[in-house]
Formats: sequence, structure tokens, C-alpha cells
Amino acid sequence: MCRIAGACGVDNASNIVRRMLQQLQHGGQEGAGIASEQDGKMFVHRGFGLVDEVFRDTNFGRDLPGRSAIGHVRYATTGESRRTDNLHPFLGETLGGPIALVHNGNLTNFQALRTQILKGGHVLRTDSDTELIMALLGNGPSLTLAERLMRMYGQAEGAATLLALAPGIICAGSDAHQWRPLVWAPYQNGFLFASESRALGLFGIKAWETLRPGTVIEMTQNGIKTHAHAAGGPCRHCVFEHVYFAMPDSRVFNEHVGTARLRMGAALARRMPPNLDVVIAVPQSGLVATQEVSNESGIRIGIGLVRNPYMGRTFISPTQEARELGVRVKLSVDDTVVAGKRVGVVDDSIVRGTTSRQIVSLIREAGALEVHLLISSPPVVHPCYWGIDTPHRKHLIAARVAPEKLAAELGADSVTFLTEGELLDAVGDPQGERHCTYCFTGKKPVPTHYLPGEENE
Amino acid sequence: MCRIAGACGVDNASNIVRRMLQQLQHGGQEGAGIASEQDGKMFVHRGFGLVDEVFRDTNFGRDLPGRSAIGHVRYATTGESRRTDNLHPFLGETLGGPIALVHNGNLTNFQALRTQILKGGHVLRTDSDTELIMALLGNGPSLTLAERLMRMYGQAEGAATLLALAPGIICAGSDAHQWRPLVWAPYQNGFLFASESRALGLFGIKAWETLRPGTVIEMTQNGIKTHAHAAGGPCRHCVFEHVYFAMPDSRVFNEHVGTARLRMGAALARRMPPNLDVVIAVPQSGLVATQEVSNESGIRIGIGLVRNPYMGRTFISPTQEARELGVRVKLSVDDTVVAGKRVGVVDDSIVRGTTSRQIVSLIREAGALEVHLLISSPPVVHPCYWGIDTPHRKHLIAARVAPEKLAAELGADSVTFLTEGELLDAVGDPQGERHCTYCFTGKKPVPTHYLPGEENE
Amino acid sequence: MCRIAGACGVDNASNIVRRMLQQLQHGGQEGAGIASEQDGKMFVHRGFGLVDEVFRDTNFGRDLPGRSAIGHVRYATTGESRRTDNLHPFLGETLGGPIALVHNGNLTNFQALRTQILKGGHVLRTDSDTELIMALLGNGPSLTLAERLMRMYGQAEGAATLLALAPGIICAGSDAHQWRPLVWAPYQNGFLFASESRALGLFGIKAWETLRPGTVIEMTQNGIKTHAHAAGGPCRHCVFEHVYFAMPDSRVFNEHVGTARLRMGAALARRMPPNLDVVIAVPQSGLVATQEVSNESGIRIGIGLVRNPYMGRTFISPTQEARELGVRVKLSVDDTVVAGKRVGVVDDSIVRGTTSRQIVSLIREAGALEVHLLISSPPVVHPCYWGIDTPHRKHLIAARVAPEKLAAELGADSVTFLTEGELLDAVGDPQGERHCTYCFTGKKPVPTHYLPGEENE
Amino acid sequence: MCRIAGACGVDNASNIVRRMLQQLQHGGQEGAGIASEQDGKMFVHRGFGLVDEVFRDTNFGRDLPGRSAIGHVRYATTGESRRTDNLHPFLGETLGGPIALVHNGNLTNFQALRTQILKGGHVLRTDSDTELIMALLGNGPSLTLAERLMRMYGQAEGAATLLALAPGIICAGSDAHQWRPLVWAPYQNGFLFASESRALGLFGIKAWETLRPGTVIEMTQNGIKTHAHAAGGPCRHCVFEHVYFAMPDSRVFNEHVGTARLRMGAALARRMPPNLDVVIAVPQSGLVATQEVSNESGIRIGIGLVRNPYMGRTFISPTQEARELGVRVKLSVDDTVVAGKRVGVVDDSIVRGTTSRQIVSLIREAGALEVHLLISSPPVVHPCYWGIDTPHRKHLIAARVAPEKLAAELGADSVTFLTEGELLDAVGDPQGERHCTYCFTGKKPVPTHYLPGEENE
Repeated sequence: MCRIAGACGVDNASNIVRRMLQQLQHGGQEGAGIASEQDGKMFVHRGFGLVDEVFRDTNFGRDLPGRSAIGHVRYATTGESRRTDNLHPFLGETLGGPIALVHNGNLTNFQALRTQILKGGHVLRTDSDTELIMALLGNGPSLTLAERLMRMYGQAEGAATLLALAPGIICAGSDAHQWRPLVWAPYQNGFLFASESRALGLFGIKAWETLRPGTVIEMTQNGIKTHAHAAGGPCRHCVFEHVYFAMPDSRVFNEHVGTARLRMGAALARRMPPNLDVVIAVPQSGLVATQEVSNESGIRIGIGLVRNPYMGRTFISPTQEARELGVRVKLSVDDTVVAGKRVGVVDDSIVRGTTSRQIVSLIREAGALEVHLLISSPPVVHPCYWGIDTPHRKHLIAARVAPEKLAAELGADSVTFLTEGELLDAVGDPQGERHCTYCFTGKKPVPTHYLPGEENE
Repeated sequence: MCRIAGACGVDNASNIVRRMLQQLQHGGQEGAGIASEQDGKMFVHRGFGLVDEVFRDTNFGRDLPGRSAIGHVRYATTGESRRTDNLHPFLGETLGGPIALVHNGNLTNFQALRTQILKGGHVLRTDSDTELIMALLGNGPSLTLAERLMRMYGQAEGAATLLALAPGIICAGSDAHQWRPLVWAPYQNGFLFASESRALGLFGIKAWETLRPGTVIEMTQNGIKTHAHAAGGPCRHCVFEHVYFAMPDSRVFNEHVGTARLRMGAALARRMPPNLDVVIAVPQSGLVATQEVSNESGIRIGIGLVRNPYMGRTFISPTQEARELGVRVKLSVDDTVVAGKRVGVVDDSIVRGTTSRQIVSLIREAGALEVHLLISSPPVVHPCYWGIDTPHRKHLIAARVAPEKLAAELGADSVTFLTEGELLDAVGDPQGERHCTYCFTGKKPVPTHYLPGEENE
Repeated sequence: MCRIAGACGVDNASNIVRRMLQQLQHGGQEGAGIASEQDGKMFVHRGFGLVDEVFRDTNFGRDLPGRSAIGHVRYATTGESRRTDNLHPFLGETLGGPIALVHNGNLTNFQALRTQILKGGHVLRTDSDTELIMALLGNGPSLTLAERLMRMYGQAEGAATLLALAPGIICAGSDAHQWRPLVWAPYQNGFLFASESRALGLFGIKAWETLRPGTVIEMTQNGIKTHAHAAGGPCRHCVFEHVYFAMPDSRVFNEHVGTARLRMGAALARRMPPNLDVVIAVPQSGLVATQEVSNESGIRIGIGLVRNPYMGRTFISPTQEARELGVRVKLSVDDTVVAGKRVGVVDDSIVRGTTSRQIVSLIREAGALEVHLLISSPPVVHPCYWGIDTPHRKHLIAARVAPEKLAAELGADSVTFLTEGELLDAVGDPQGERHCTYCFTGKKPVPTHYLPGEENE
Repeated sequence: MCRIAGACGVDNASNIVRRMLQQLQHGGQEGAGIASEQDGKMFVHRGFGLVDEVFRDTNFGRDLPGRSAIGHVRYATTGESRRTDNLHPFLGETLGGPIALVHNGNLTNFQALRTQILKGGHVLRTDSDTELIMALLGNGPSLTLAERLMRMYGQAEGAATLLALAPGIICAGSDAHQWRPLVWAPYQNGFLFASESRALGLFGIKAWETLRPGTVIEMTQNGIKTHAHAAGGPCRHCVFEHVYFAMPDSRVFNEHVGTARLRMGAALARRMPPNLDVVIAVPQSGLVATQEVSNESGIRIGIGLVRNPYMGRTFISPTQEARELGVRVKLSVDDTVVAGKRVGVVDDSIVRGTTSRQIVSLIREAGALEVHLLISSPPVVHPCYWGIDTPHRKHLIAARVAPEKLAAELGADSVTFLTEGELLDAVGDPQGERHCTYCFTGKKPVPTHYLPGEENE
């Protein structure tokens, strides 16, 4: 989980990338970084914190000069050490010159690749899969950057949407199945790239292309060339991008996220328990679907849960005192909205169930007569191997508790999920031909790929 | 504009105050501070930034020990220097011992008081009105803290809701008319105080008292005593607290903020232009009213404006590049929600009009057929002298543009305001006996008070 | 203990003060601050750390504009809280306008003054004597800054060498007896002031005046005026400035510090034990005297003790582990210099004796045959009440141990002190008419002054 | 230029390394880092600044656990980017497990090695020679760490004294000729290592071994093994370590630094101009030799130059204003010491000559009759390729100016250098069999080694 952006052949490239990363900040708040290139020299600045914090003192023209730049916001994964080494862009020196790399996704043949690379005598610095990708870009002095990337895609399995910057060139690459999104569009005399279309929208761009699976796009001053590096499909877009990760005003995989969420809400409205008095959202991701539930059902919408917008990111050390306060530090219930009511609570998904249970409990304490959970996706029953930070199967409540006991386990009067079919309808793929639904269904997106730990699930 | 909190006679007082300040963070993001008292010694920590940032490295038991503490979050007022001296709590050494003070509000006889105090030979350190309050608490070694506060209230005019901490005692005080809110409740063997009830709610407190105008409450280990320092009224509660400033799940001045906003939305629904296709909120403060407009009118609600939750606070230096991007850096339009539609845009108020004009323009660019502004308060036509950061009258768009030209000036097809009566109904004060509406009406809340700059308005 | 500097009526005044403070950094490493004035407005920047650290990001022209400025470096006094409030310059708002103040010294009638000021109803913010001086500068709108200072000197007893900045004027003031030094000289069209002459030397100034006791110098664009505020003496210059505090290349009180230390070394050479093989200095303050001991006696000089120049300032938290390493972390012995030798160890003074004892022990461990302490001042037997950070009498080793037992107590073979007469000769005041020697002799510098705690010594 | 330290098999290893790095801080003030190992897991903390600053908030037991650790202080080399990537320890992941590495020295076949490694398909992250060393440690899963190091030494030419940490083992390695020093000694049940003996002295260690050229020492819980990886000589110890770089109370290459400097001073005393009135040191490195000049010649010693101990490290941005103040900001002259005198000024070496010229000029301005430079080494006429930060030959004053014109060029009345023979005598190697004197003589220490840029000198 993270977001990437790039600008090629435009004025103030690094500052434009900064602005795009601000629009993608929801995709990662742990750290950020930008690399730019000028006259064959690579510049980089990375740090922990929000984009605004990391680049607070940056003089973009002086510190990150040049007309091409790429950037990354990083999502904090539990337990990983906060080593600067793990922040993107990764820099690599090769015989063919320097390369900078930002990567969104997760490789599934990580262990095999790593062993192969180490056996080749390479010494790695981190246990990041991005460093493996970089390691596969070395050698072959006569190869172009695009050719190196295509060679790499022949070896790496899994999700690897990326941007690579080298002197005079930017390449955007997608693995064969494209779990993670990327859009791009012409801008000035060059191009902009971003994980989500909202970042391009900031610059008034209303039309863009979606990177195709199995391709590497190469941009230089001579224009743009597209290379196909694999059979080019089938698409295995991550459906969770629409469920939770992307912003509602973005388009990813050629589909508008907010519209997909409206359809999810509409589907919920058709199947939810009757006689609800009010529907409320678990902020923020549940809000679009909640509104559509209300629009479609005529049931009143209310703000029953208020999120503290200033908490969370810095809420690092879970002390005993903090655990006792629990979710209330981040989320408070407005009893005037729920007391004496049959309440429908709309959330995007249930993973561990811990937060849902606390929320149901808080709403009951505030005097609700009934609490019904309305989830705008199917039950999550498998971990993700392509970059979404879901826990091991044993921590997934829907994997350990039988469906008919789930409401009781969560303390709710009922819990309504979408079916796989409803979700696929919502994202415009009724036959499920283009999306990865592994976390909901266990259907392997690429049957021949090995999944690490799958046997232990 | 700011928020205050206190804890008296309870374990971990300073940490509890920290937690309450986190719940009041919306009231001020420039800086924060807490003072505590133990064995007659005063401890204090203040800094610039969010509560989480200021207290990131604080060991509360060691750095802010004791069973009584008070705290403050500060709102950044344009143009003021970022001097630590201006951060609350203010500390004062007097013959009677040390005092710490947090203050919410603004004195109207600031200049006269300041001259009087300086004539008395005092040397002040800042141009803060809180320092004037502190200066009025000196001398009178035989006076109790409450008596000093009452003497001060005899001299200071304007808004001064405050908490004062001295060895063995906390006092909560309100000026005679109570522009700014404060609630309090027993907790453990002591008491908690906060500007808004949501901060008490964090600790499971569901019942509380509202500080009465013209009183000073004195809390010691011997219990609680209330002193009346003035005629005790009439109330002149700030109606803007309900319109914009307080959080919707709070109660202030004995009225639930969210409920007041629902009533504002309902009033808008009755008077807004017919034939709208969708209503959208200007996030975040417009959201409650928007939902009620939809609930009452049956018109669909949508998320047409998406706010970037990570921007704003650090968006300090308005460079040329930033000005060109303008409001889009903070707010993006979702064209799928507004294109081809007659759109109602709900906002809480219009002050300068700059942002409203930009928002209308963005929505039109995104393809809306019509844009109608629905404002859940009357036009702001006067500055505030009691602590809300409104600009000079010449910058207030509704003061400079005739009502019938306002929509055109804002680029909108229409603009609907609430009437004073509708607003007062919404806050449960139909006769306007208890609220200050000066910014909307110009009615002086206390006719005999001098207002600085009033003659130049 | 601290140092002050000022620049009046010169270009880049604040930056010049910064440069002078760097030259005075030995006088205080805890914090630093500068205030400047332009067009009647006061600017200030203060912080903890070295001058270089505090002003690392300062744009002097923008942040501290104007042609007059004053500054201060602060010495860390044990146990005091690190509150920004305690950093100089102190700012004061008076009826006559703003004042900034830096102060070197310590008031002896602090408690009486404080009570008087608090009884006057003033509320103080700190327990600093500088704030008392500021409090005494209030009121009297028709008084000039110089007149206010003279009124203050009529009330404050003790050491108060200071610089005060107000719009259009800088005043330099000395108490009647001038414990702390200040020199000044014309520069460009204005004037520079500094605690020690070396700060002026940086700007090529080779001739300067010494501020006379009992005077206030007033500098404006109309030139310079000197006011006498008291009988003007007798001088009671702090002899410890020459012994330890000032830098050897400075002149203070019209006497060159290094030359005074040479005379101290020469006196030691006349009285020290015979048959020493080598003399070594306790760095850094013992170095000048050591060289002269060698020059005069012909005994070889060696670097037997090597100080770690990077330690000390940040050596804050004395853990058990740090205590065991002890003085060795800061100071190491070179055994090749001392092994098998009769060693003379030259230090400037003995206060608590703790470090001396450790040093003697280290030198013995390194194989010295004999260790003789040569102290270039008399035994310290009283605390200082005028600004040197000496401990209570009970912690002064020479006050609690009989002279004949002192060497044994320190583990040394002998300890040689200067007599009061030799010290006074060294500073060019053989009759002791101009220096305060209270710490060495207990002779009250001003018999009529009350000394706090004197009765408990 | 840098210093390294390690602790193997001892309690609190990382803290002990911290303490040793503090004693070696003179060897590098730009940055510091420590890596430790526990249960096969590697921990690391690196940062810019002094050891005290980098580890101010470090909890050694928690953040750097384990009984083995290595550390490094880094010297700031002009022009290099301040990338964290360049700070030691370097971490490497190999098939055989993780390795941490600290390195002192400079490889001479850097370019050839780099090309070879990149041709092997490796992707490097920096242009550091330490990363090349790390890259040569990969592969060979059955090889021990010592065997890997020996394989590496077969390929790397130049100076590479290093410490490598892997699970259960620390290796100390020297290249075949040992330009850079390392000493080690048993401590508790394990071992300590440090660039200079003074770091061991802190722990009371008075006897130690010197790492032999061409060896790798391997330390595990089974004890210590020494491996010879090359012909083992001849030694080519850097003579500049004695001239300038090491601390005087250290032993390096089995020779005491201070004693070597005494001999340099004695040699100067025999050849310097007659009739000097006083000798003064350029602090700090000239001090030992100066004292011996005085001891041997009977000429008086004085402190004519006073260094500001707080300047230098943070004196980063050389503005116009700073250039005008020049060396005076760091160094001031005491005119009482030099005025009217024939002054001998002792310095350790002359490289560019810029500072020497400024110093001579300052001393003349202060009234000296004559200024004679006494340099305790021969003229520097070649750059160093083994780790001392000397500039290109064209910037070396003694390489561009004829010997007879050098005094005039420096503004001095005379300049006296040591001969090569005197220097070699001073370091106890009269035949020059064990030291590299390339910078003074141009004699290639290893005739068969290629020196980068040698042809362009």
C-alpha cells in the first residue's frame, strides 16, 4: 500500500510531483520521497512524515532540480523498522548510469528471487522487494532502461506498478496483471503519472490514459513508446482499491471510485434489514456508500460517529492508558443521532473485527435500540499477497467465525455483506474477468503463481 | 478562538487534560500547553503544533506531575508573531503564590485596561489580553484565587471564560455574559472541565453542568463553591459556536450542536430553490446541515467536494505557485456527482467570500448546470470582538455587496441564507434572549460596552 | 555567569551581535538570544544551545532587522528549569514603549525587591532577578530610558551590568560597584558593547573604553551621554573574572586577563615545591599559568591531561554508567608525560574539590611518583552572591577541611595556593581597592549590603 | 579520515562503543553510527552530528541490544552529499546472513573495482568505496566472514582497516600495508577494538595489541583466530597520523603520538632561526611540539593564538560576511604576547597555505616584529590517496611555490620545515621502512599500485 507519481519533461517537475503526492497522501503517511534528474545527475530527498513535513524546508529548484522527477508516499507497515533505507525512491548505480525507482505493489516470488540474487553474489541492503527489482535492473550496459525493466518483469511475479527515472528518460511499468493502478496524461511538453486520477486533476487534466497490464511506457524527449513485456493479461486489478483504498473522486482501472461505491451502497440498500430509523457511516471510507443507502432507501442519514481528524498518524505508542480509551480517542458517538433508534452502520469492510466490535459497543452504550452492520464488500477471508496490509488468515474474523455467528461475535443485531457478484457489478466487471478478489474469495488471480505462506493459511 | 480543559483532584491529571485537548483540537492547531501543580510547585509545557506533537516526548508523571492541571489549544491568528510567550497556560508569580491561567475569549476594553495597568507601573511582556487578566490577579495577599478572579471580572469587559490553577485549587470563571462555553462534571474524587462536552464524553461522562455566566467556581479538596461576581446575565452566548466552531457531537450552552445544525438544515430545506438534483456539503462543517437538507427535502445527497485531510495546517507560505493551484490543493470536485446537475452547495457561513467564489467556479468547471449556495446562517456583516477571528468589516462580502448582487458576485445562480429568526430557532432561543448575534445583526450584546474600532466599521 | 553584547546605530546590528556572542560563547552555553529594534518595533529570537545552533536558520536582515541590537549567552545553572522565559533578552511593554534587556550579574537584595514588587500588585512570570530589573523600569511615561535605569539602580543592590534597548536608544548600565565587566567603542557611525574586549577585537577594534561603575551610558543618533547614578564606587570588580571566567586574550576592568594569569603563574613558580620534573595544566583555564610556571622555573612543560573538546555541554544525564567512567570521559591522562615523574598540576581554582581529587588519582594511576597541585588563586571559602555559580559553603572543600589536611584530602603530595596579596598583585590592585575577593576572603565588598543566606554559611 | 571502534562479547557492547567513539570524536564530526547484533538480528542507528547528538535519545539496551557492536565517526569531506546512505555502519544482506561494516581508509583501485562489480550485474546505491568492500563480501555461502574478508583483500588495493560484524562473530581486518591504525585488547570475556589506544584507556586498559598488516582477526565465543591474507607487508603506516590526525595521548602503529610530536618539536628547536623571543602554537595540533620547542630551546612559550572551541563544526555556510571576518572568527591573536617580539609560530603542517598566510598576517597586525613559521613536518607536495583529505596537487602551496619563495608567499620572515629524515626519526622509523610518506616525498608506498589521477598531478 502506497502511492506513486511522476513528471517527465516539464518545468518544476519535482514540485509538481510534490503537489501530486499531497493529493495521494491517503495512500501512505509514514514517509515520502522524491528523486529528480538534471544533466545526468540524480537528486533525492526522503524522510519520515507527511509530504508537507518531509518537504517543508525543500527548495525544489535548488535541491531537486531538473525537468523529470518521481515520488512516493509510504504506508506504515506494522513491525517494520523505520530505516531510511526503506523509503522510496530507491537509487541504484549501474554500468548504464544511475536509476531511481518508486514501486507500488508486492512481489509474490520474493523469497525465490532474493535467494537467486544473493546466490549471484549480490549484497542487498534491506529486505525490501523494491531492492530486488532494482537488483534485477543491473548489468547489460547496452540495454535501455525499458529493456531492463522488461527483463525484470520476466523474473518478478506479483504486483509491480512502478516508475523508473534515469538520465533523459522515465519509464512507467506494470506487471502482466496490474494489481495496482497508474494513470498518465500529456502535460505541457511532457507527461504526468499518478496512481490515481485525482492527482492529475489538480493540474486541470480531465482526460488521461490508464497504464495497460504487461507494458512498459518509455518517455524521452523524442516522445513516447510503449513496449509489451508479457502476454498482457488477463487483468487482475485489486478490487480493494475500489472498496477502500482509493479516494472517491479518483478513477482507477478506468472506473470511477465514487460511482463504484454508490453502486455498493445501492446494493446494500436492497438487501439490508427493514425498519431502520437512521443510517450512519463509519468515517471516512464508509461515507459515499452511506449516502447512497439513504438516497435509495429513503432512510434518514445522520452523523452518528465523529472522527477526530487530528488523531491517528501520531498515535504511535499504545500504552495501557491508551488501550483503555480505545477507539474513543479517534471516534466518538453522537448519542442524539442514535439513542432510541434502530441504527444501520455502514462500513467498507471487516478485517479483524476489532474496531467493528468496539464501534457497535459504543453505539449501544449511547442508547441505540438495535445496531445493524452494513458492509459494502464481502467478508475478508484471505490475506493479500499483492500489497494490501491484511493480517494472517487466523486474524481475519470472517475466516474464523461462521457466518451465522458473526453478528453475535461483533455484538451486532445483524451484519449484511455484499456478495461477490454485487461487488463485481459495482466495479463494472460482472463476470469478474478483470479483478483480483482473492481476499474475498480465495480465487487465485494467477493459478500458476506460488503464494508465500498460502499453505499455512 | 481556542479551547480549554482542566482536571482537578484526579489521578494523572495532566494526561487527562492532554486527552481532552486532543478532543478539542479542532479549536486550535497552532499550539498547545498544559500546566500542573504538585506540592505547591507549578509545572508547565507549551509548544507549537498539534497536541500530539507538543506532548510527543512528554513523560506526564515526571514532567507534569500532580493531581490538578489545566490546558489550552491555540488558534493561529494571522499576523501574530509565533512567540512562545503567547502560548497558554500563562504563569504568574504573586505574593499569594504561583498562578497558571488558560483563557478563551477576547476582552473588549483591552486598550483601556492595558493603559491602566501600565500606568500602575506594571511591565507587560506581550500584547495579549490574557496577560492583562493575569496582571489583574496580583496583590491582595489575603485574597483567595476566587476573590482575585471576581475582582478582575469587575474590571475586564468582554469574553473571558477561563481556568486558573493555584496550589490546592482550581477556579473556573465566566464573564457576566458568557460568550464562550465551559462544561464540568465530577470525576473520580475531583472534577473535569472542558470547553465542549465531547471532551468529557471520552471518559464516559454523560451528565455535566454548564458554567453559569457571572460565576466563579472554586474547587479544592474541601469540595466546590460557586461565587457570583456580577448580576449574572443576561447570557450572550456566541451563536457562531453552533454555526461553525464547536464539534457536532458536543453540547455547548446546554444545547446540542449537531441538533442545532440539523434544524439549520431543515430551515434551509424549506426555503431553498426548487428542482435541485443533488445537494453537496462544503466539508467538514457543512456536512450535518447538508444531510438534513437531503433528509427533509428528499433530494439526493452526494460527495461533490472532497477535502484533503492532510492539508491546511502546514500550508503556511502562500507562494505564487500555491496561489495558482488555489483551493484545489485542499478541495477537489468530483465531476461524476455534479456534471449536468443543478447543484445545491451547503456551507455554514460566508465571511470574505473568497473561498465560496472559488468553490462555485470549480463546480461549474466540473460541468454543473446550476450552482446554488445554501448557507446555514445569516450573512456576516460585522466583525467579532469576543474571540472569533473574523476580518474587518470592509473584507466581509455581505457588508460590501448588496444582497441582490451577492449571488452574481459569488458566481452562483442563487444564494440562500437563514434569517436571524431561523438561526435563533435552531439554537433554541427564538426570542434571542441568550445569544450574541452581533456578527450577523450588529445588535450590541451589551449596549454599554465600548467596542474597539466599532466607529471605523 | 553569562556574557552580553550590543550594537547601536550600525548596519547589520543583529548579525554583528551574533558574531560578538560567538566570541563570548565561553561565558554561557545553555542558551542565547538577540533582540533588535526597527521603526519602533522590537524583534527577538532566543533559544537553547550554542549561538551557532540558536541562529542556524536565522535570516538576520529579515528576522532581526534594524540598526540596534543586544544579545546574551546564558550559563546553565544547575537545577533551574529550562524555560524559554528565562532566556534573555527580556522584553517589556511599558507606557513609554517596548524595552529589551540583557543582564549580567546577580542582585543581592532579590528577595526584598521581589516582595516589594509583588506587594505593588505586579505579577511576575519567573523567579529571575532580570525580571525584577525589568519590573522596576515601568511607569513614569515622561522618563527617559536612562532615567528609568538610574531609578532602578537606586533600588537594586548587587551586580547588574546590563544593556537596554528601546526605540531609538541603547543604554549600557553598571551598578555602583561593577562586579561584571563591559567595554565599548565607536564603530562605523555607532557603537559596539561587549562583556570582554575580544568580541570587539573581531571587528578590528584595538581601543575601547571600560564602562565606569555607577554610570549609565545613553546612546542615540544624537551621540552619547553619560549619567552618574550613584557615588560611583568604590569598584568591586570580580577577581574571579581574571582567575577563571574571562578569556585570556580579553581585557576586563582595564586589565589584560592573560597577563594577570602570567603573573599568577610567576607567583606560583616562586613558591612551589622544589624538584618537580614536569608541570602540566588542567585544560583549558590552567594553561596560561602553567606556561609561565615553566617559563619562570625552567621546569619542562608537558601535556599530561588531554581534554575531549567535544564533551561536556551535552553530557547531561549522569547515569550510573557515566559516573563510573567519571572525569575520564572528559579528561584523559597521557602516561608518557607523567609516569615516573614528580608532577606539578596547575589549575585555576579549587571549589568542591571533586574533580581535583579525581585528577590526582588518575595521574597517580598513570604512574606519577608525586603529584603536587599548584592553584593559581587562594582557597575558595565562601559562595558568590554576585553571579558566579559557586555552591553553598558546606560544599567548598577549603571551607570544610583544614589547610594542613587539604592535600591529603585531595590525595596530593602537596597543594600550593596563591595568597590574597599575590592574587591582587597579579590583577594590578596590590591594595585590593578595586576588587571583590569575597569568595576567597569573606571580606564583604559593600559592608552595608545584606547577603542572602550569609548567616547560614 | 574517520575513526572506528568495536566491542565483541561484552555486556552493553553498543554503549561501550558509544563511549569509545566519544574518545575518537576528533577523527570525524560529520556523523556517527553504531550497529549491534543479538540473536542473529542486526540493529543499527546512524545520524549526522556529534556522537552525543546522534545518540542523545538512544536507549542502548533496547535500540542496540546484544554483546557485540561496531561503530564509526565520519569526517565531512567537502562537496559530498549528506546522504544517510553514506554513513557507516554499512549493512549488507548475504546468503550467509547479515553483515555490518565500518571502514577507515580509501581504496586506490576504486574505479576498476567498481566497473568490475557493476559488470557483474550488481546495482550499487552510493559511490562509496565501503559499498564496494561490502559488495565483495557476498556469495560463497559456505565461506566464513573471515574467508570473505580475505577474498576481498585479494581484490581491493589501498587502505582498508575495518571491522565487520555478523551473527556470533566480529572480524577486524587490515589491508596488506596498513595505512590506518587499529588496536585491540581483551576486556571482560571478550575484546575491544579502536582506531587509537586512548579509546581503550577509558576502560582502564593499559596494554593492547596492534592489528598486524595483512591479517584478519576473527573473534567468536570460541576465542580468537588470526588469518594472514597476504604477504603481510611491508608496513606503510600513514605518517600523517602522527603529524596531525591522531590524539597525542594515543598510541598508533605501536608508537606514542605525543612522544613522536615531542621529537618533532625537539628537531625544530635544533634548526629554527636564532633570537626568537617567544614561541606560540597554532592550536590545537601544534601544542605538543611547541612546548618541546620551548623546553629544548629555553625560549619562552606563550598563548598568542586563542582558538574559539565552539566554532568550526557548525561554521558551514561561508557567506561574504563570514569570509571578511575570515580566520578571526575561529582564532584570535593576543597582542600582549606577540607585540614587539620576534615570534616563532609552530604548526603541524602546511597544506594549502591559506590559513597560515592569514595567521601570519594577524600576528603582524598585532604588532609582532618578526614572524617565523616552524612546521613540524616536511612540505606537503602530493595529495593522499589513502584517506587523508588533502586537495589536488595544484592547491598545495609547497608544490606550486619554490622553497626559497615560500616564506614570502606566506608573508613570514622565514619558514622552517622538518626533513623527511627528521620526521622518520620522530616516528621511530629512521630508515623509512614502515611508513608511507607519499604526501611529503612522492615515494609510492606500493610501487605496483595504480594511483588514480597520479598522472594529472
